[in-house]
Amino acid sequence: MLGRTYPDQACSIARALEVVGERWTLLVLRDTYRGIRRFDDLLASLGITRGVLAARLSWLVDEGLLERRAYQARPERFEYVPTAKGLELWPVLMHLLLWGDRYYPAPGGPPQVAQHKGCGGRISPQLTCDRCGRQLGPTDVTVQPRRRRSHPRPAAQLTR
Amino acid sequence: MLGRTYPDQACSIARALEVVGERWTLLVLRDTYRGIRRFDDLLASLGITRGVLAARLSWLVDEGLLERRAYQARPERFEYVPTAKGLELWPVLMHLLLWGDRYYPAPGGPPQVAQHKGCGGRISPQLTCDRCGRQLGPTDVTVQPRRRRSHPRPAAQLTR
Repeated sequence: MLGRTYPDQACSIARALEVVGERWTLLVLRDTYRGIRRFDDLLASLGITRGVLAARLSWLVDEGLLERRAYQARPERFEYVPTAKGLELWPVLMHLLLWGDRYYPAPGGPPQVAQHKGCGGRISPQLTCDRCGRQLGPTDVTVQPRRRRSHPRPAAQLTR
Repeated sequence: MLGRTYPDQACSIARALEVVGERWTLLVLRDTYRGIRRFDDLLASLGITRGVLAARLSWLVDEGLLERRAYQARPERFEYVPTAKGLELWPVLMHLLLWGDRYYPAPGGPPQVAQHKGCGGRISPQLTCDRCGRQLGPTDVTVQPRRRRSHPRPAAQLTR
């Protein structure tokens, strides 16, 4: 596909970016981590067109980062659940979050905070809990998402 | 700029992607990490147009991820050195590398390998050295880059 590949780059970073570097792809994955997994919910969360969302979901399913699961039979409805391969990009998203929090805090309020579920500790640059020291993974952390120009939503959890 | 922003997303991941999510930006940063810092060297390494490279470098300087330093006076020539802010994205690139190595190994040869400089250990998913256990950073690791359809180049080091 034009515009997404990195010809002449044998680097695994380039290859990874060919898979997840396209606009919106990592944000779709982010939402599925935190439990937003149905088409219309993703549409509302991301504010993109149906066409773009459908293309990103289809790509992520084809590449094995998301699994498409029926949650309703009549009419048939699907949700998109991150696979182990999809979940292994969690550190990429967490480091982008930490970096964005540090250098580009959200205007009009505190940046969203990633916390160790249950414990309440903050996530360290080593992706450990700064309170109990445990190594954290995608199911251990809650994130308080916030949309611009709207009211805060309840904390969403990164769930499997 | 059209096509790069994520309107209605107060999330720090989205903000970080507004800064480094554009095509080629993370690969420019990757090259400056490993000591490829002059315009023509970056051009040769990346295989992109002068215009795209100039735009990415200018953007990364404006956002404070790279510092433009004169290395020659007549004619004036500059190199692009990652700042502390730029270096703090190292974990993002390393996790993309590890993920790409795992799921998309380069065809025609072993994937490139990130090693603890001096020690020779491999980098773990926690970005520690799997031999000596030390937490690794951008100046601790060597990466063997390899371009498709060409001969291997000597190992480049991630240097400051």
